[in-house]
Amino acid sequence: MRVKMATNGERASGAQTKAGKDGGRLRLAIAGFGTVGSAVARILIEQGAASPFELSYILNRRIAKKRVEWMPTSVRWTEEIDEVLDSDIDVLVELVGGLNPAGTWVRRALASGKSVVTANKELIAAEGVELSELACRHRQHLAYGASVAGGVPVLSGLQEGLAGDELVSVSGILNGTCNYILTRMEQAGISFADALVEAQRAGFAEADPSADVDGSDARAKITILSRVALGADVALDTVLCRSIRAVSAVDLRYAAELGCTIRQISHAEVKEDGLHIAVQPMLVERGLPHAGVVGPQNIVVSTGRYGGEATFSGNGAGGGPTAVAVVSDLIALARLGTTSSESMSPTLRKMVTSKEFVMPHYTRYLVRDRPGILAAISQVLATYAINVDAVLQLPGHSREALPFAITLEPSNQQALDAAMAEIGKLHFLVQPPLCLPILRKRA
Amino acid sequence: MRVKMATNGERASGAQTKAGKDGGRLRLAIAGFGTVGSAVARILIEQGAASPFELSYILNRRIAKKRVEWMPTSVRWTEEIDEVLDSDIDVLVELVGGLNPAGTWVRRALASGKSVVTANKELIAAEGVELSELACRHRQHLAYGASVAGGVPVLSGLQEGLAGDELVSVSGILNGTCNYILTRMEQAGISFADALVEAQRAGFAEADPSADVDGSDARAKITILSRVALGADVALDTVLCRSIRAVSAVDLRYAAELGCTIRQISHAEVKEDGLHIAVQPMLVERGLPHAGVVGPQNIVVSTGRYGGEATFSGNGAGGGPTAVAVVSDLIALARLGTTSSESMSPTLRKMVTSKEFVMPHYTRYLVRDRPGILAAISQVLATYAINVDAVLQLPGHSREALPFAITLEPSNQQALDAAMAEIGKLHFLVQPPLCLPILRKRA
Repeated sequence: MRVKMATNGERASGAQTKAGKDGGRLRLAIAGFGTVGSAVARILIEQGAASPFELSYILNRRIAKKRVEWMPTSVRWTEEIDEVLDSDIDVLVELVGGLNPAGTWVRRALASGKSVVTANKELIAAEGVELSELACRHRQHLAYGASVAGGVPVLSGLQEGLAGDELVSVSGILNGTCNYILTRMEQAGISFADALVEAQRAGFAEADPSADVDGSDARAKITILSRVALGADVALDTVLCRSIRAVSAVDLRYAAELGCTIRQISHAEVKEDGLHIAVQPMLVERGLPHAGVVGPQNIVVSTGRYGGEATFSGNGAGGGPTAVAVVSDLIALARLGTTSSESMSPTLRKMVTSKEFVMPHYTRYLVRDRPGILAAISQVLATYAINVDAVLQLPGHSREALPFAITLEPSNQQALDAAMAEIGKLHFLVQPPLCLPILRKRA
Repeated sequence: MRVKMATNGERASGAQTKAGKDGGRLRLAIAGFGTVGSAVARILIEQGAASPFELSYILNRRIAKKRVEWMPTSVRWTEEIDEVLDSDIDVLVELVGGLNPAGTWVRRALASGKSVVTANKELIAAEGVELSELACRHRQHLAYGASVAGGVPVLSGLQEGLAGDELVSVSGILNGTCNYILTRMEQAGISFADALVEAQRAGFAEADPSADVDGSDARAKITILSRVALGADVALDTVLCRSIRAVSAVDLRYAAELGCTIRQISHAEVKEDGLHIAVQPMLVERGLPHAGVVGPQNIVVSTGRYGGEATFSGNGAGGGPTAVAVVSDLIALARLGTTSSESMSPTLRKMVTSKEFVMPHYTRYLVRDRPGILAAISQVLATYAINVDAVLQLPGHSREALPFAITLEPSNQQALDAAMAEIGKLHFLVQPPLCLPILRKRA
């Protein structure tokens, strides 16, 4: 149960503030006319006369270059946020992205009695709690269904469709770039670097891919999901975040030997001592829904106390899918027009990140081969009471840079970190060991 | 766009009728205290003091046998629907199932100013349009999120999360019993009859399994999905419905040879000449999300004009998951308390079933072997301009009942039906031919 009911009085006053100015149609301004912004405008225009919305403003830099012939003349183009915020619009659709100036615009919009629909995961992950409170104080709505997994209706699914459950964990593949790269490494047996170049050529990765491959994009999304699904308010910078850059082609081969693939998994789970939350590459057993997600797709799996697992998947990015999420938020806002936004706010608990995280692991070592290597590594693992499950070494590698893998039985994360640090100092290692948790089907 | 906005006036008057009688809490009666009803009661009670609901009545036959010690004494047990309908409850939670008396109770509840939340797929599939109109006239809500796919939040996902898209098709696995049976036939190589007995022993099939295996259960659900996702009002009895009884173990072996499995697929798609809608066993290519659904799980895949495919999956039945859907509807109702139910009604179009349905097919023939069989069948197919794709015959069968398969290139459904009828008369056939569409990945 993650809902507080508004009182009648609040509803009634909400009804007065949120009514559209011309008999029910909500007047909108779109800030940011890029791929998503133009897709939103197109959907709104194609709704025709039956639309509950009236697109009033498009705000962008250098509008002379942005103008399109299919935009009705009734829509005003502007480069001035003040013109938009001083107008009588009901809703600001913020599609500029980033913390600034988007954050300032959103705050000013809410403070001046306009609701906000946004796809801005960075802003919502970092300041969403405060912005929701601000919206509530001004009896406006702040909706951000497009900020996680684009066209996959996961935030509304968790917030509405599963509102009756008590969710205890949420996990998923939230970054299509990482998934595209890992899928290509698996299918074509190529290196991370080559797969990244392919992803960049295919338009799935940016020139600077670090937000995607190093995890900060997914970290923003899992932080938002934790808030919506688990009611957990956790500081963004405390979320464990590991890059997929360290994964090599040989790891995908070893993973296949173990009946697994490798995916960038975002995971959040309520534990006794706080929230376990992380974004990292993991081995995922074939047969789990995460393993079946290929290319730039997204998936989210929630686990509820009463209803068990529910899975949502689809296109996590792209103009069309993200625009659908934005317009769906607008429609929800029109439906909820008379309800105070308070009724939509989950009851949040401030949570610290949990250290209580016990999973089996895959470890991989790249070594200059010589006698005694396995003994030395095993000795360190034994010191930390970590049990070895299996040792894998596929043929066909140089003795100067020989990769082999050891799988470990479920072990405590802190012991494991310490063991890996110690093993990393052994002189025969060519690079630090790789250590990935293994996600297996429940027995 | 599938939403009409309520006017302000409607909202305001809604606010008066739907307010809970004791400062916001909604008073509920649960009709039907079986697996789902008791799970709903348990969730409501475990919400504690923060709950926006007050459980007032439990209605069931022979309540003496039904009483449980964990029910608060404030809850009144009754066998009389009149007592419930004459009371001051706000919402009737109808979990009795079937058309009668549930339909009468729902109509009486709506007419007497009570909203209704129901899991009754039969009632909603057959009379949902009229009941929604009745709810609207009386400014009440009718919610039925639990009627399709239990704990998978698909109706809300389609109606809210994807409201901004224009959905063109919806397909899925909506009957867990069929999926359990077909999964077992595939995994264990056993017959339909043996898998059915297993399913009955495991509690996944009823003593009379016909509603599940012959398709009427899934037919009700795809009819509801079509209404919610596609805005299509189609008569239940015009929906094509084929049993899975005709599928044999050998079909699953041939399907595997073709890179497919067999699933009971419910499918609805808007075509130029109406709605293509059917429930039938189909070959499903591995790699499609439907093929990965094993055991009693459900899946729904929607396709939107703007956002492409979105997939929802999870537990389609069971007390806990279904109860989550019911309670989620109750929470949505509490949130939407002030909005007239009209704003939630999709704009429906009356639609006829489309004959425009062209797919590749798998056909299987059980014959008394003799020369000329393939020639005779091929001749009939050629007469109807149906192209053969491949012929499969696995060894190890008696010449008296020899199964072989022919896959056909995409062909018109009517031509195919006629060809199969004609082939069915050939004297060497031991039983009528089996003809299943093949669902393949898009190129």
